[in-house]
Amino acid sequence: MSFVDLNSDLGESFGAYTIGNDEEVLKYISSANIACGFHAGDYNVMMNTVKKAASLDVGIGAHPGFPDLGGFGRREIAMSAEEIFNLVVYQVGAVEAAARVNGTNIQHVKPHGALYNLASKNPEISQAIAKAVYAVNPNFILFGLAGSELVKAGEQAGLKVAQEVFADRTYQPDGTLTSRTEPNAMIHDANLAVKRVIRMVKEGKVTAVNGEDIDIQADTICVHGDEPEALNFVRKLRERLQAENIKIQGFGVEQNV
Amino acid sequence: MSFVDLNSDLGESFGAYTIGNDEEVLKYISSANIACGFHAGDYNVMMNTVKKAASLDVGIGAHPGFPDLGGFGRREIAMSAEEIFNLVVYQVGAVEAAARVNGTNIQHVKPHGALYNLASKNPEISQAIAKAVYAVNPNFILFGLAGSELVKAGEQAGLKVAQEVFADRTYQPDGTLTSRTEPNAMIHDANLAVKRVIRMVKEGKVTAVNGEDIDIQADTICVHGDEPEALNFVRKLRERLQAENIKIQGFGVEQNV
Amino acid sequence: MSFVDLNSDLGESFGAYTIGNDEEVLKYISSANIACGFHAGDYNVMMNTVKKAASLDVGIGAHPGFPDLGGFGRREIAMSAEEIFNLVVYQVGAVEAAARVNGTNIQHVKPHGALYNLASKNPEISQAIAKAVYAVNPNFILFGLAGSELVKAGEQAGLKVAQEVFADRTYQPDGTLTSRTEPNAMIHDANLAVKRVIRMVKEGKVTAVNGEDIDIQADTICVHGDEPEALNFVRKLRERLQAENIKIQGFGVEQNV
Amino acid sequence: MSFVDLNSDLGESFGAYTIGNDEEVLKYISSANIACGFHAGDYNVMMNTVKKAASLDVGIGAHPGFPDLGGFGRREIAMSAEEIFNLVVYQVGAVEAAARVNGTNIQHVKPHGALYNLASKNPEISQAIAKAVYAVNPNFILFGLAGSELVKAGEQAGLKVAQEVFADRTYQPDGTLTSRTEPNAMIHDANLAVKRVIRMVKEGKVTAVNGEDIDIQADTICVHGDEPEALNFVRKLRERLQAENIKIQGFGVEQNV
Repeated sequence: MSFVDLNSDLGESFGAYTIGNDEEVLKYISSANIACGFHAGDYNVMMNTVKKAASLDVGIGAHPGFPDLGGFGRREIAMSAEEIFNLVVYQVGAVEAAARVNGTNIQHVKPHGALYNLASKNPEISQAIAKAVYAVNPNFILFGLAGSELVKAGEQAGLKVAQEVFADRTYQPDGTLTSRTEPNAMIHDANLAVKRVIRMVKEGKVTAVNGEDIDIQADTICVHGDEPEALNFVRKLRERLQAENIKIQGFGVEQNV
Repeated sequence: MSFVDLNSDLGESFGAYTIGNDEEVLKYISSANIACGFHAGDYNVMMNTVKKAASLDVGIGAHPGFPDLGGFGRREIAMSAEEIFNLVVYQVGAVEAAARVNGTNIQHVKPHGALYNLASKNPEISQAIAKAVYAVNPNFILFGLAGSELVKAGEQAGLKVAQEVFADRTYQPDGTLTSRTEPNAMIHDANLAVKRVIRMVKEGKVTAVNGEDIDIQADTICVHGDEPEALNFVRKLRERLQAENIKIQGFGVEQNV
Repeated sequence: MSFVDLNSDLGESFGAYTIGNDEEVLKYISSANIACGFHAGDYNVMMNTVKKAASLDVGIGAHPGFPDLGGFGRREIAMSAEEIFNLVVYQVGAVEAAARVNGTNIQHVKPHGALYNLASKNPEISQAIAKAVYAVNPNFILFGLAGSELVKAGEQAGLKVAQEVFADRTYQPDGTLTSRTEPNAMIHDANLAVKRVIRMVKEGKVTAVNGEDIDIQADTICVHGDEPEALNFVRKLRERLQAENIKIQGFGVEQNV
Repeated sequence: MSFVDLNSDLGESFGAYTIGNDEEVLKYISSANIACGFHAGDYNVMMNTVKKAASLDVGIGAHPGFPDLGGFGRREIAMSAEEIFNLVVYQVGAVEAAARVNGTNIQHVKPHGALYNLASKNPEISQAIAKAVYAVNPNFILFGLAGSELVKAGEQAGLKVAQEVFADRTYQPDGTLTSRTEPNAMIHDANLAVKRVIRMVKEGKVTAVNGEDIDIQADTICVHGDEPEALNFVRKLRERLQAENIKIQGFGVEQNV
């Protein structure tokens, strides 16, 4: 039997503003990436999201991002490695306290948006993130794009890492994601997307855009739940994974904090 | 020999904006109330302030405030007790992570500005704050105005509390501070201020505005360091306390987190 | 034939966050209160909302609020009259520029949320708002709660004012709105609400909660469009107003800026 | 007799945070670039700065920047040309209203920090800025780095432009500023700096880092006043300019708004 984790971005509402369908998504995922109040979320939304995730045994993840609510953390902001370190420690600390208040702890840390993308390819930034996570708690698992600099930095720092794959994206021969500006970046056929995920999990292979098979490690799959169609895809993906004897489960929380 | 703690608000700079004279003040105090990025401070300033305080063995305190950088946390914002709880957990968690990264932990929590004033007299808000601190770590010490609702709420919640007195403020017969809108709110004579502090520490008494002596417990004294005159006062206060065999020291950090 | 204006709060989305159903609501109203980026909205949302309103000949209103995105401007923030003056000038100026860029000008200014409520009963604050509007442009119309301090302040300042009534709220014998904390604050029966509005417009009368008829001037009616039910109510209200020969129209923009 | 304008960035304080020495600097300059509340400044600081500048007949300039108080507008934020247009309209509108309230109008617009640097070399962004300024008021003067894309865009848009030079910076043979990361970017010798400025104003020439003389148009000189040394430099520069019969004056405000 194989295992895989399903993760999704949650807790992105802010004050009177609602984004996402957290209640529903939480039923289907094993790990929740919870916004930390910088690119999205606030202290109330975060606490409530941590509470709900904890009550459903969904792994709690800090989802730190750039301080840019207006841009939803999707715009890169030039910062030194030291600033990135401080930025991540702060946000992870805030989620950690919310988790402890709810009788549990953080399972993982996954950078958000522009910070995730930057960390995927920038060794200095990815090392700053990995060091920050390790310094807060060496038991936290670092989520990063499969094969990316962030995964390398996490391993170097002594962290457990979870390599993340995307069901609806195509891959380049070097294992990077095809840029969204390319016409063939997205996979719109849900059946094909599911098939690719199953192969990534079972065989550790995916077909790149040039037709070549490449190696990929799929520890966790990123899914979305803000649109009805996205939720339908998650339900289908779960069914098909289970039919293939692939168990959906998170990574658990180390207790020796 | 008696003991007393000297605390001061630090880490209030933000981005390119500098407030205070933290390097200098840190030489004279035993406890630092470090802004958490809501009413003042940011993730960089917080980390650097925690680092400096740790290196000088000054007790690290989280100094949570209302989310109001434009008003420096001096304006009350209507929030439910639950929101206040979440607000405090978030900010304390952020400082806690910064402390851990620097090999130490938080010693205390002291609400800032309008939140401090509100908590001094509002039982529901003070209980929310005390519960938040306890939930994050029952070993953290809660700083509150001597004799206030916050002190009571802290004790009720099972926290150690430190009762705070002000050297430059006058007191009402019921032990509350004279409102700053009153002409006799402030004590401008430094010698008188020092004398009053020494009496508060040694005898647990202070003379209220009506001439009556009232009981007051002085565990920690709030001092300021942003103006040269304020720093001079702190130096004088230290000398005189030491001359009276009153040792200036913080409360220490419990290790069993 | 009578006339009445229908106004609604628009442009409240922010970055990736959407609130409201502006496209749809704009079809039914004659005046749009456009958020100015302090309690809601941003420079992109504002420009697009101004553009849409201008293209449909809906009167453009600045809708200034407290600087509190997290609280959607619903929480009072203690400010001096001078600060309120500056706050309003700033926000009105930003909308004015957006209007000019779209070949038109502001028709009116209506304070939002806690600022509106505060201005309804506080003469000093309402005067600061009225003076700010007048100082930016004496031709702008000030919207205020019918019979409130804001209406008085607007008239005193030399502004044209539009007295605003609420279809779904009950009134006290002194003409103030029943507080939302009271059980009888809201009118849930749409037919009754419509009848009351028609009477306010035609007769200048409304029945207060004690059964007494009071005088009220209904220049403009506040409607909402964020919920499907609210939109249905607006459609019904329009039909019934038109059936009663009450024309729905805004106030127009003075050209001599 | 020649003329030149001296401009400086003002109004950068925020809430309880003070930056700069505005009162003093205003005595020596002819044009003030006033922060608009996005990268620095707030509605109170802006109003007071506009008022002071107006009372001293210093030309009022809007100084729009990226929405990044934490980074003081020094970090580029990826935005489309349309977003930049909206960003500039909003900020210029806010200053314009403050100017009108003080019985005057905006003289000029100068982008701040990262927006200025980006506009210097990026035609699309500089065109968006120029169009925004023109759309708000075609009489406003656009300040841009001498010889830059922003100057070109302003002229193309039909605006009057003022070409800006820097006394303390060196120039490349192509007329661009030497990057601050280069060791020879800054001119530390005040006498040399003054000499270069005088030559730029009188002869339209400056010696580039390779020793070559290049053409440069010096309509306005950027000076700083936040450090005592900087203020001394401004005083010296004024004296020397006057000794050379170069009159220091702003551009004046067109009255036909």
